[in-house]
Amino acid sequence: MPVNLTAPDPASLLPVAGLRLGIASAGIKKPGRRDITLIELAAGSQVAGVFTQNRFCAAPVTLCRQHLAHGGIRALVINTGNANAGTGEEGLKRARQTCEAVAHLMGCAAEAVLPFSTGVILEPLPIDKILPALPAAQTDLAPDHWSEAAHAIMTTDIVAKGASRQTQVSGKTVTVTGIAKGSGMIHPNMATMLGYVATDAAIAPGLMQQLVKAVADVSFNCVTVDGDTSTNDSFILIATSQAGNAEIADAAGADYAALKAALSDVAIELAQAMARDGEGATKFMTIAVEGGRDQAECKQVAYAIARSPLVKTAFFASDPNLGRILAAIGYAGVNDLDVNALQVYLGDVLVAEKGGRAASYTEAQGAAVMREADITVRVVLNRGSINATVWTCDFSYDYVKINAEYRT
Amino acid sequence: MPVNLTAPDPASLLPVAGLRLGIASAGIKKPGRRDITLIELAAGSQVAGVFTQNRFCAAPVTLCRQHLAHGGIRALVINTGNANAGTGEEGLKRARQTCEAVAHLMGCAAEAVLPFSTGVILEPLPIDKILPALPAAQTDLAPDHWSEAAHAIMTTDIVAKGASRQTQVSGKTVTVTGIAKGSGMIHPNMATMLGYVATDAAIAPGLMQQLVKAVADVSFNCVTVDGDTSTNDSFILIATSQAGNAEIADAAGADYAALKAALSDVAIELAQAMARDGEGATKFMTIAVEGGRDQAECKQVAYAIARSPLVKTAFFASDPNLGRILAAIGYAGVNDLDVNALQVYLGDVLVAEKGGRAASYTEAQGAAVMREADITVRVVLNRGSINATVWTCDFSYDYVKINAEYRT
Repeated sequence: MPVNLTAPDPASLLPVAGLRLGIASAGIKKPGRRDITLIELAAGSQVAGVFTQNRFCAAPVTLCRQHLAHGGIRALVINTGNANAGTGEEGLKRARQTCEAVAHLMGCAAEAVLPFSTGVILEPLPIDKILPALPAAQTDLAPDHWSEAAHAIMTTDIVAKGASRQTQVSGKTVTVTGIAKGSGMIHPNMATMLGYVATDAAIAPGLMQQLVKAVADVSFNCVTVDGDTSTNDSFILIATSQAGNAEIADAAGADYAALKAALSDVAIELAQAMARDGEGATKFMTIAVEGGRDQAECKQVAYAIARSPLVKTAFFASDPNLGRILAAIGYAGVNDLDVNALQVYLGDVLVAEKGGRAASYTEAQGAAVMREADITVRVVLNRGSINATVWTCDFSYDYVKINAEYRT
Repeated sequence: MPVNLTAPDPASLLPVAGLRLGIASAGIKKPGRRDITLIELAAGSQVAGVFTQNRFCAAPVTLCRQHLAHGGIRALVINTGNANAGTGEEGLKRARQTCEAVAHLMGCAAEAVLPFSTGVILEPLPIDKILPALPAAQTDLAPDHWSEAAHAIMTTDIVAKGASRQTQVSGKTVTVTGIAKGSGMIHPNMATMLGYVATDAAIAPGLMQQLVKAVADVSFNCVTVDGDTSTNDSFILIATSQAGNAEIADAAGADYAALKAALSDVAIELAQAMARDGEGATKFMTIAVEGGRDQAECKQVAYAIARSPLVKTAFFASDPNLGRILAAIGYAGVNDLDVNALQVYLGDVLVAEKGGRAASYTEAQGAAVMREADITVRVVLNRGSINATVWTCDFSYDYVKINAEYRT
């Protein structure tokens, strides 16, 4: 069950001027399932994205990269139930056909459409089901269909994920709304299957790519469920330029900072929601590594802990078998790490120091923290001033069940 | 349940001249459990070892490295139920006390004793239970107690692991016998918690370290259960020099090759047994990667597949959800890999080529292979002439159960 997570109230997901969403059912995996989402963008919208590093990237990811380079994006089309990955030349052809069909409906070029797919890998995209559903998605277009879209892009997610914020930019109120889906095959880079965050702010096109990267690095790139980097991970940032603010053109200025903070807030909430709704999750874990020499070694240690099946099953059991955390720190690959110099905390409880169990530590202290649903593991390396945080969840019977029965 | 694996017939584990084994009960984890193993070596025995790369290595591993550098090893002492890892200075002191007690009993120096521990991390070694049990272990010393020792070093293993071979070296029959334990927190380097292989062959001391490394690289360093590198992994090679063969002094000669082959046979059988008896295993998987440019990239691809929880749960379900194998190949980290040039086989069935599903592949073919208990996944990279093989097991409900309940 999702950990301290409920679906957002539909009214809390604020419309973003210049953007409309439409949902339809193609019945790709199950008859009647609303599995097609169409997003329409006003002319002048800026779009940037970051994508999976997987060499077997999906056909839609390849097309997204090409179309983003081309610019002038006017529509996004998302299907669940099939990833269109591991589908070779035919997969690219079908993704292109989808873009062409959307372009025909919306009256734009095929290169102005970004396609996204999520679901089973290695099976042909059922274009015969998708294309006939597109007109209904167009008819459904509305600015307040964010909640419906958050539901329509779910795969094994239990809870729909969405968030909104507002902030001031050059005296104007700008809105940020985002949706995302998890919840397995999740590991950076990228750490999401699909995430979309939109704002009505006006921002110089030249700043979009650094902004989407900066936001991803503090949000979707800090979450892991199972260490499997998907073939389809995509995080898309949209700026519709309808808020009436003076275009943000200075990455060092206050307006850029305010917008980045609002975007990051939304993206972090979505990223944490993925771990809270990680497949089979019963605990939400924050792994904070402090006092490292650089980001890379802090993240190495944090991910070693966050990925360890032994650590994750111990948390599932609420068993403070904390030696497993020490073992993970030890094999994280930081070769000159002095294990006698570091401290490990579970919540506020000092667990280990000087290469062993802290003298003050008692099993009862550890057990008390383990009974919580939200738990922080803090590792203080004492060799520098850099910190990094990673979010994850535990490893339960239900993870095995969900993934063993995924195609049934 | 272990996959196509039964405990060896005690009579099949051949004595090695110059080596005796004794078992006793210290009741470390459970009263009455035979958890102490003592191995006595004749004077003149050669011993070499390879150990975990984990920075949080256990106190006994630290002492083993020191004592092996010193030479003249005459005894090994092994306890289960406690790893003596994450125990700081006090852990080293207790490991030293164990060596001193054994040395006193055997009439040798403390530096002539190698200590080994396996079990829970971060808890103090119960020396008050171990020391009083040592005299009984000494009384029990016998050349034919290999099977008893194989049982006594087990932790979560279901089946005891042992194997023997004989070969000819310079006209003399030499014997090789080994035992090992798994079966969780298993990932190279090293890939075993504990493995011991002994021969009565005479071999030049200067060749021992390269021999133990060569044998480990084709056996224990090719197996993974859960990707967790333990704090205590140790593989020890013993040569008692009692077979009467002319001392092997040439690493390029036929005698060295014959002995290495027999040692490797035994070590591979033990390493495969660990994956067959991996925690919760229902399938034994051989991941063979062929046609790579070098060992490193072949192993990278093999381990990405072997470690993936999504691949492992699909095998547990006997579901040919083979896109997960493609995804793992894609994120293995071989940055210039051409996914359109490789082929993936499940057993003898061609599954994927040209970046997608093979035209000849049918779900029925995949399902038929998946029904087997021993399954080979073969990836042909088509970019070089190097191969690598890794053994692993699937990921089941019982893995979660075993590791969630480990300390209860």
